[in-house]
Formats: sequence, structure tokens, C-alpha cells
Amino acid sequence: MTAWQAHLDAHDAQYFDELLELLRIPSVSTDPSRKGDTAAAAQWVADRLKKAGVPDVEIVETPGHPVVSASWLVDPAKPRVLFYGHYDVQPAEPLELWDTPPFEPTVRDGRVYARGAGDMKANLLSVIHAVEAFAKTAGQPPLNLLFLFEGEEEIGSPNLPAYVEAAREKLAADVVVSADGGVSGPNLPSLTVALKGLGGCQIDIRTGESDLHSGMYGATVPNANQVAVQLAATFHDDQGRVAIEGFYDKVIPLTEQDRADIAEAGAEEASILEESRAFALWGENGYTEVERVYARPTLDINGMWGGFTGEGSKTVTPAEAHIKVTCRLVPDQDPLEVVDLIRAHVAKHILPGVKFEVNRLQGLAYPFVLSRDLPALQKASAVMNELYGRDPIYTRAGGSVPITAVFQKVLNADTVSFAFSQPGSNAHAPNEWFRVDDLALGRRGNYLLIEAFASGVK
Amino acid sequence: MTAWQAHLDAHDAQYFDELLELLRIPSVSTDPSRKGDTAAAAQWVADRLKKAGVPDVEIVETPGHPVVSASWLVDPAKPRVLFYGHYDVQPAEPLELWDTPPFEPTVRDGRVYARGAGDMKANLLSVIHAVEAFAKTAGQPPLNLLFLFEGEEEIGSPNLPAYVEAAREKLAADVVVSADGGVSGPNLPSLTVALKGLGGCQIDIRTGESDLHSGMYGATVPNANQVAVQLAATFHDDQGRVAIEGFYDKVIPLTEQDRADIAEAGAEEASILEESRAFALWGENGYTEVERVYARPTLDINGMWGGFTGEGSKTVTPAEAHIKVTCRLVPDQDPLEVVDLIRAHVAKHILPGVKFEVNRLQGLAYPFVLSRDLPALQKASAVMNELYGRDPIYTRAGGSVPITAVFQKVLNADTVSFAFSQPGSNAHAPNEWFRVDDLALGRRGNYLLIEAFASGVK
Repeated sequence: MTAWQAHLDAHDAQYFDELLELLRIPSVSTDPSRKGDTAAAAQWVADRLKKAGVPDVEIVETPGHPVVSASWLVDPAKPRVLFYGHYDVQPAEPLELWDTPPFEPTVRDGRVYARGAGDMKANLLSVIHAVEAFAKTAGQPPLNLLFLFEGEEEIGSPNLPAYVEAAREKLAADVVVSADGGVSGPNLPSLTVALKGLGGCQIDIRTGESDLHSGMYGATVPNANQVAVQLAATFHDDQGRVAIEGFYDKVIPLTEQDRADIAEAGAEEASILEESRAFALWGENGYTEVERVYARPTLDINGMWGGFTGEGSKTVTPAEAHIKVTCRLVPDQDPLEVVDLIRAHVAKHILPGVKFEVNRLQGLAYPFVLSRDLPALQKASAVMNELYGRDPIYTRAGGSVPITAVFQKVLNADTVSFAFSQPGSNAHAPNEWFRVDDLALGRRGNYLLIEAFASGVK
Repeated sequence: MTAWQAHLDAHDAQYFDELLELLRIPSVSTDPSRKGDTAAAAQWVADRLKKAGVPDVEIVETPGHPVVSASWLVDPAKPRVLFYGHYDVQPAEPLELWDTPPFEPTVRDGRVYARGAGDMKANLLSVIHAVEAFAKTAGQPPLNLLFLFEGEEEIGSPNLPAYVEAAREKLAADVVVSADGGVSGPNLPSLTVALKGLGGCQIDIRTGESDLHSGMYGATVPNANQVAVQLAATFHDDQGRVAIEGFYDKVIPLTEQDRADIAEAGAEEASILEESRAFALWGENGYTEVERVYARPTLDINGMWGGFTGEGSKTVTPAEAHIKVTCRLVPDQDPLEVVDLIRAHVAKHILPGVKFEVNRLQGLAYPFVLSRDLPALQKASAVMNELYGRDPIYTRAGGSVPITAVFQKVLNADTVSFAFSQPGSNAHAPNEWFRVDDLALGRRGNYLLIEAFASGVK
């Protein structure tokens, strides 16, 4: 057994206790009453980085929760690798649905249950433990390490882009490793090669100065709800395609190879109908469900409201209606352009004479795809093979991680996701968990990844 | 000057203060937290009837809000006239659109602004004041008076039909006078000869067990909001007609005479665009605006909601959406049948595989038309001429007064509308008002009407 593996094994119990300690800190970033706890989690992570041997560790205040920014620079000739993660967690509510309290981590059936276990305190700690193994056995890592652990991922990272911009020289990296994510199953390693973009807007419709009596005016003036539904019904065609003019113009078509890769990855994914508990499937004709989730853009009406929404009946012809829309985007769609396309579509299709506004919503993200030829990705794949005894599948995520596009733009660095949470581990839901066995796997994986990256990442 | 007129004039200030007192009671029948206030309004009206000299006044409890039922029987040989009205009001929301608080009546520009001013506390009080003038000057009215003031008109009178049925002997009347309504303009008296019917339902749509992450599932499962807008967009065709199959089957077509009468009345109506402060006109092609308001059926989407309706953005694929619909109906449409037609339309047009319910809303009304030959109508016309110096126009109301059909059926009595609210007075909208000058006009009108009815109503 290698010295580093022996070191990791010898500290297994201590590392596990550390995870429980971190999980007990209720670092709920969205809850103002947890601001102190969130700061305490930042301090805990900073202290643990120092203890692991990382020489330069700072807690950077932001208008929101602090960023833990650290570096261990060993040789200018070696690659610079930036590990990204977050120490904040989702709210735990509804509390009554937890079998054990969310901030009192409990082990059952080989899993540790706690808010933040899967997303992503276990993965974050595995990175630090792997770095410590270098420190304790080799004295230092074989390349230059940077760490960026934020406390606002669960609220959309509002302050992180500004910090990355401001610290672009310090954070300069050849590749980013995101420890936020997971594999596709206990025996199914995976690497995420694409993330969707995100852009959206709120459409506010006004048909007159005030709501009116439907008996007196319903026959002669526009009803804002009717205007809204007739407008929103034009957002999709009867083939499930988004019918906003120009929406698909910049979409890079899937190649036969893309479709084959997606089919291969998708064949091992769980049933969407079962997993989602939806009553039916729906979507763009001409593509499989997995192709749609992985690689086709969508438009969702996230919210709508207008008129009387209370109990019973109110015979009103409403003067206002509102629609919230977000689109999941794929290369090379641009979220700003998509909102402009929606605005133009609304102007063209809305009932003439009524007033409307289309305002972009926060939460912008550019779509992101990783080249399969990227050496860092190939090395991550080889490490996965060593850990699991098989090649990983290449998945694309339907979700968006806005900061990935920031790393691309500001640092000119691709992001490789490398993490060990399991599907169905209830990130963002009650009874979140992380497999105890995956703690050792994650430490070992991060050690091997750093070692592999030492010889080059791009 | 006659003694009764002198009496009314002498009490002008007192009567005005009484109106403000009644307007300060927030008798919002749809709001459970206002139950006590609604009961207080019933008590206020009952007390005022007694004070006016009406000998038999009772507050009748119902499963909902109480009915104020009163009578002053003077001579079995004389006609029995039943005055109908309601002391409840619409909700005041949205409060931020009121220039002054809805339950703090305020006089500006010759108008008193308050929720319930136009609909219909001023009209109700004018009836009581007129009766008091008989009591104080002649000792009693010249015919038999009955009063039925309910507290549930704004929620569709759910308990009044049962009371009318139970009290049919007490309420036996030769004609009903509804004090709920208004004229067509400050110098344009009018009498309503038709009321629309009303029927509606709530459509609840469910696409799955829970809201979902739009990135993970938005491409593959139905979005309840999208299902709702695509469904609701089928409720009308591009000619402004209601597109519910069978909706027009029982509609009696307008005759050339009907259209001529409507054109004559409509020629003197205020501009709908100006009055409504809508930004555009809209409606069924092939009919004038006045024809549509008076005599064509409609479907309004009174309310809709689904998904995330808070500030900012939430990238959810919602599992639930809701639509509230009511229809204004004309002879011989049946409100129960219309809801069945909507249910069948929904079943046919909704996305297959999703779940839905269509539940009828309270507030049923059958459409109603009055004969021009009715003596009571002709006498009301003569009184209007005396008040305004010109004959009234005969209008049809776009609104519905469900109880009218009940009076017809249970009491075998026609209903003459006799009331003084102005068009555009924001019944059911913020900044509701009643003209101060119309208070004296209303009192005088009701006095003259009772006097005229003494010699016969049918």
C-alpha cells in the first residue's frame, strides 16, 4: 500500500467525525437568521484548509456570505488547478418530512443523513483530505492548487462573479475542478460534459386602468388573463417545439456521434416518469427524452397569475396578468438574445392595443460544453476507471451552473466536474444523504486526480 | 313644496351622515374574517328600517350571512311591493389602487368614494329614507311594502333562494323593485329590461405529484402552466366568439327590432372606452359594443394562477395550475348546462394524460327579460320622466341578478330595476363612487315610485 493511501486509511474515523462536525453547522445561505452559522461554516473550512497544510488561506467578505479563497503554489512550471465548491446548504424545510433532524447527522444503512451531506459538504471535505495526504506524505502537492469555496451557491452565487473578476490574477488557472455534483449510480461513474444555459423574463400585461365588472365590460374590453393565455399558448407549437421566432437559430444540431453518446449514457439512467412522478411525458418531437434533457433547449412558464385567485368566485374582467418564463439553453444560444427574441415575439403576438413589458429576470447562465479532447477530462476519466473498474459515461446536465461560464469567460478555464454524490440523494429535499463508502472513494479520487493533473491538464 | 319633499330636504345632512356610517362597515361577504362586520351591517339596516317606521323587521339567520326581512302591511286591497337589495360589498383588494381607503368614505368632486357606495349602499338607503318620508308626513305608505335585503349578493346569493322559498307567503308580492343597479348617465335615465345569467367553474389542472426542477425535467414532462394556457386559449376563437362547443345552441338570436331598440338606447350611452378606461375594445365580431354588452353571452377568465408567483425567478416546472371562469348568459342559456359544456370542452382539449377537475362555482343565475307592457315598468318610466324631464331608455344589463329569476319562479313576480348608480362608478373595482346629488334624486324617485304604484302595478 502506498504511503498516501495508508495515511488516508489511518485517518478514516477522524475524517468521518470532521464531516459530522461540518454537517452540524446549519449554513443555510437563504436564511438571514443563519448568517452567523454560514460565517461559522466558512471559518471551519478555512481552518481545515490551513490544518491540511495549505499556506495561503483567506476569508473574503462580500455583500453576502464570505468566500473562502486559498492557494498552495509550488512551482510556476506546473499546472494551476482551481478547486471550486460551496459550503452553504439549502433550507431544510419542510422539517416534518425528515426522519432525523437535518442538522444532527445520523448514519443508517451505510448512509449519513443530513442537510448538505450530498450537496456538497462530503465532496468538499474529500478534496481537503486528499490535499492533506500530499502534505503529510510528500510535503506538498505536485502542482499549484487554488481553492474557491463560496457560501452562496444555493442562492444563485450573486456575489461570486464579482469576486472572480476582482481576483482574476490570483485565481488564474489552467483548469477548474468542480467538486459540486455526483456520479450516475453506485457502480456507474460519470463525468458531466455539458451544462445548459439559462435566461428568462417576466411579462407584465395591462389591458386597462383597473379591473372591471365582467357583466358591464367583459363583452367589450380585453380580459388580461385571456390576452395572457392566448399569448403564452403561442410559446410552443403542437410538436412541443419552442415557437419563439429565432429560438433555434443558434442551436448547434446534435451530431450522430452526440446522439449515440447520449443514448449510451441515457440507457443507464433511471426512468424519468418514475423518478419525476409526473403523470405523463411530454416534449419536443423528434428527440428522445434523454436527448431533450441533455441537449435540447426548453421554455418553461414557471409562474403565471392574474385576476381573482382567492376562494370562490369574483366576476371580474382583470386588467393585469403576469407570466414568468425561463429558458434552458444549449450552445450557442445566448441568454440575453433569447430574452430579446421573446420580447419581439410578445410584441408580434399580443393582442393589439394592450400594454406590456418584458423584463429580464436575474439568473443568467451561458450554456457550456466541454470538449472530449480536453486532457483534463481524459485524465479525470482515467481516474474514474481506476476507482470503479470501468469507464465513466459522459452525461450532460439539464441544469445550469452559472459560475462555470464565468470561469470560462474570466479565467479562460474549462471546468471538469468531479464528485461522488449519488442520484436520488435528496439534494434540495428532506432526508438528504451521502454514502459512507463514497467518502474514502472521494478522497482517493481527488488524490489520484491531482497526481494525474501534475503532468498537464491542457 | 310638498310636506314629504320638505321632510327629505330637511334631513339631507343627516341622511348623508348615515350613508357614511353604513359605508364604514366593511361588509365584505366573501371574506370570512369580515363575518362580524357583515352581521353588523345587517343589524344597522334592520335598525334603520325600524327607525323609519317599518313595524315588522327581522334579521333571519342563514347558513351564511343574515337576511333582513321586513314588512309594512297597510291594506289588503292595495298592491304588495317587495323592495330587494343587498348590504354586502365586494372585496376592496387591491388596496394599493385606492386613492383613499375603501372603508373611509371620502368626498371629492361631488362624489363619495368608498367600497359599496355605488353597489349599493346609497341606493339601499334611499329606499329607506323614502319610506321614512311617508311615515313622518302621511303616517304610513299608500300600499303594502315588503323588504328583503340580503348579505350575500356579491357571492352569488347562495342562501337567498331557500329563504324566498321558505318565506313565500310572507314575501308574496305583485312586483319586485330591485334597488341594485343604476342609470345610464347623469342626465340619462334608464330602466333595465333584461339581465344576463351567470354560470362558472374552477378548472384545476395537475400534471404530476410535485413541482419539478425545470433543468432536470422541463424538457420531458408537462408544465401545468403551459397546459393551462394552451387549454384556456381554446375558449375563444379569433372572431371573439366563445369557442366552447354548443355554447350558442340555446341563444335566442336578436331580432331586427331588438337590434333597433338596442341601437336607440346605446346611442345615448357613454363611450365604453372612456368609461372603462380600458386601452382597447375587444369582443365578438358581427355585433356592436352595445349589442354585446346588452344581449350577447360571454366567457371571462376571472382568475388564473400556477407555479412561482413571488419576486424574482424560480426555475420550476409547476405541477399545478388553476383557472376560474364565469360566463354571462342570455335567454335561453342554462348556467348548469353551460358548465357541463365547459367540462366537456376541457376534457376534449386538455393535454392527454394530465389530471383535471372542473367544479361549478357558486353564483348561478338564469337570464331574465321583462315585458315592455308591464304596468309597473310603465309607471317607473313615468317617475323617471318626472325626475329627469325625459323618458328613460330601456337598457339590458350585462350584469346578472340571480335572485330575479327566483322571484319570477317562486313569487311569480316580475322585477323592475329602479336605481341611481352611474356608469363607470367602479362597482367591483378600486375607487368606487356614488354622486352626492343622486342621493336626493334617489330618495325622491323611490317616494314617487311608491306613490305611483299605489294605484296598481299589474
